[in-house]
Amino acid sequence: MTLKVSDTGEFELIDSIRRIIDGAGHKPGLLIHGIGDDAAVFTPEPGYEMVVTCDSMVEGRHYLKEHITPMEIGRRAMVMNISDIGAMGGIPLYALVTLGLTSSETVEEIEGIYRGFIQELEPFNASIIGGNITKTAGNTFIDITLIGKAKRGHIALRSGAKQGDAIMVTGFPGSSGAGYRLLADGISPSLKNKTLIDAYLRPVHRAREGHSLAVSGLISSMMDVSDGLSGDLNHICETSSAAAEIWEERLPVSSALQDISTLYKQIPADFILAPSDDYELLFTCAPEKIDAVKKTLKEFDCPVTHIGDIVPMAQGMTLINRNGERKPLIKKGWDHFSIK
Amino acid sequence: MTLKVSDTGEFELIDSIRRIIDGAGHKPGLLIHGIGDDAAVFTPEPGYEMVVTCDSMVEGRHYLKEHITPMEIGRRAMVMNISDIGAMGGIPLYALVTLGLTSSETVEEIEGIYRGFIQELEPFNASIIGGNITKTAGNTFIDITLIGKAKRGHIALRSGAKQGDAIMVTGFPGSSGAGYRLLADGISPSLKNKTLIDAYLRPVHRAREGHSLAVSGLISSMMDVSDGLSGDLNHICETSSAAAEIWEERLPVSSALQDISTLYKQIPADFILAPSDDYELLFTCAPEKIDAVKKTLKEFDCPVTHIGDIVPMAQGMTLINRNGERKPLIKKGWDHFSIK
Repeated sequence: MTLKVSDTGEFELIDSIRRIIDGAGHKPGLLIHGIGDDAAVFTPEPGYEMVVTCDSMVEGRHYLKEHITPMEIGRRAMVMNISDIGAMGGIPLYALVTLGLTSSETVEEIEGIYRGFIQELEPFNASIIGGNITKTAGNTFIDITLIGKAKRGHIALRSGAKQGDAIMVTGFPGSSGAGYRLLADGISPSLKNKTLIDAYLRPVHRAREGHSLAVSGLISSMMDVSDGLSGDLNHICETSSAAAEIWEERLPVSSALQDISTLYKQIPADFILAPSDDYELLFTCAPEKIDAVKKTLKEFDCPVTHIGDIVPMAQGMTLINRNGERKPLIKKGWDHFSIK
Repeated sequence: MTLKVSDTGEFELIDSIRRIIDGAGHKPGLLIHGIGDDAAVFTPEPGYEMVVTCDSMVEGRHYLKEHITPMEIGRRAMVMNISDIGAMGGIPLYALVTLGLTSSETVEEIEGIYRGFIQELEPFNASIIGGNITKTAGNTFIDITLIGKAKRGHIALRSGAKQGDAIMVTGFPGSSGAGYRLLADGISPSLKNKTLIDAYLRPVHRAREGHSLAVSGLISSMMDVSDGLSGDLNHICETSSAAAEIWEERLPVSSALQDISTLYKQIPADFILAPSDDYELLFTCAPEKIDAVKKTLKEFDCPVTHIGDIVPMAQGMTLINRNGERKPLIKKGWDHFSIK
């Protein structure tokens, strides 16, 4: 028999979730009190700042149940948040999770989602210390607050980009957005496009890389690519009172992205600059530090590409195409309300 | 013209929210970076623990739009969380807010909700440091994570109740549940029942009182009444491996609750022990400390009542009625999934 959430009580459901959380291997040494009281309590570590973020996923909006397993849903929701902590230079410690359930979910699904959370937290010895389950008549939703620590003086902000800095990006942005499009268009997974669909369903964060870059002192600004490369670059430039010049020919193109571009009769840059939540790192550094940055990232086997430079704000956001023509780099990004 | 969320973009909406947040008077001195980056950053204070809680409100489930103004929705959602921090002995510092919007809300409503958050945070010099707006097809939801601080060694847990301890409660529990029933039954507000409806729509937390009690060292356990007195007392007893004996005749009955009990042909205890989110404090202390506790709470003009005692677990949860008869105290509390 498949046990639905409506067949069980809230407290029974919480008990089964607690068993999963308590069964997780690691418990941070500085956690004084976790789940089971009005609030959780932990001791902050001397010499560290606290870094905190929250992000949510709504069924039907950020994921479609037919394409993704409960464990993948949990992993994806946690990766989004871990990526934000890493992009500040932090390390995740404690998560609080709110689930909004319609009560048609099965208990097995909910347990799968929690197992996904824990799979992503355990490598950091991080754990779930609180949360809340509520009933909603609409779509299932997951809202996570993630608390981390970052070494005092080694926080990476968006606002530090300086004129002349190199604009660097890890991995292959645009993959996730391309994967989403394949799924939405009902194109069946093949060996060729699998990496794109995986990038969407099973994204990987670069939190360790982000932490290392922040601690290295080599970079001037950083954020994660969660809206899309061009939208996110715009955030860096706006907060840094600067602009950017990007060369189309330098954008990192995977062979899978090349294939899908051919399929859709588009150029790879259309995917790379479009809305896409890749959880790659977008950062800037002085040009003389590029080699040291590459060396730092090599330890993680993390590809990195120099895609352009920071220019004065008055120049505006520019894309230089393969023919050397300069075009305005259009600000694109997810906008939950204008996309109907 | 009434501007709907669907008429504006996400970033415009966030801008108008930021103006409200930035316009709020106080900014905590230890906040390094607030809204506008991947995560917020703050410096923890030496000698303090961090206390963190999250709670959510779903439209149609926790509130009905026809009964409550946007500012009241905001205040209520924040009070729930402030109450949890106070019940641990903490003081609120930083809030992160996730809003799930259907896009049929007006921009004015959303701004009203944020003004409500800020009204509750400002007296503590606390502020909103992060958040997230997402689209949902179902009901509007608000999910808040609130971070506070509590003096090291002065955390009030649920688990400290000892045999022989007095069970104390502030204010008049059951008021909010009674007010909700009046609203749900369409009974129009009158001078007589106004305090009950107010208790539901405009609840007040006891966070300052909770902090004072925790710092005083007079109490052995504490929590807030958010599920209902009997359900919450059960939480204290379960985590303390003890049971409770409550005297019906000692339960605090307001004149408004007396009136509604007559109206519904019930006894006040039915309301006082039933599910009700009153945000009063439920705590235990050694009997010889009752006078000092009362003195501490008198500074806040906070009524407090000794309603029973902690007994050995084997005795079970007991209610002694006005005739001296002993009956099992039934565990009641909100259960979001079993209540259809």
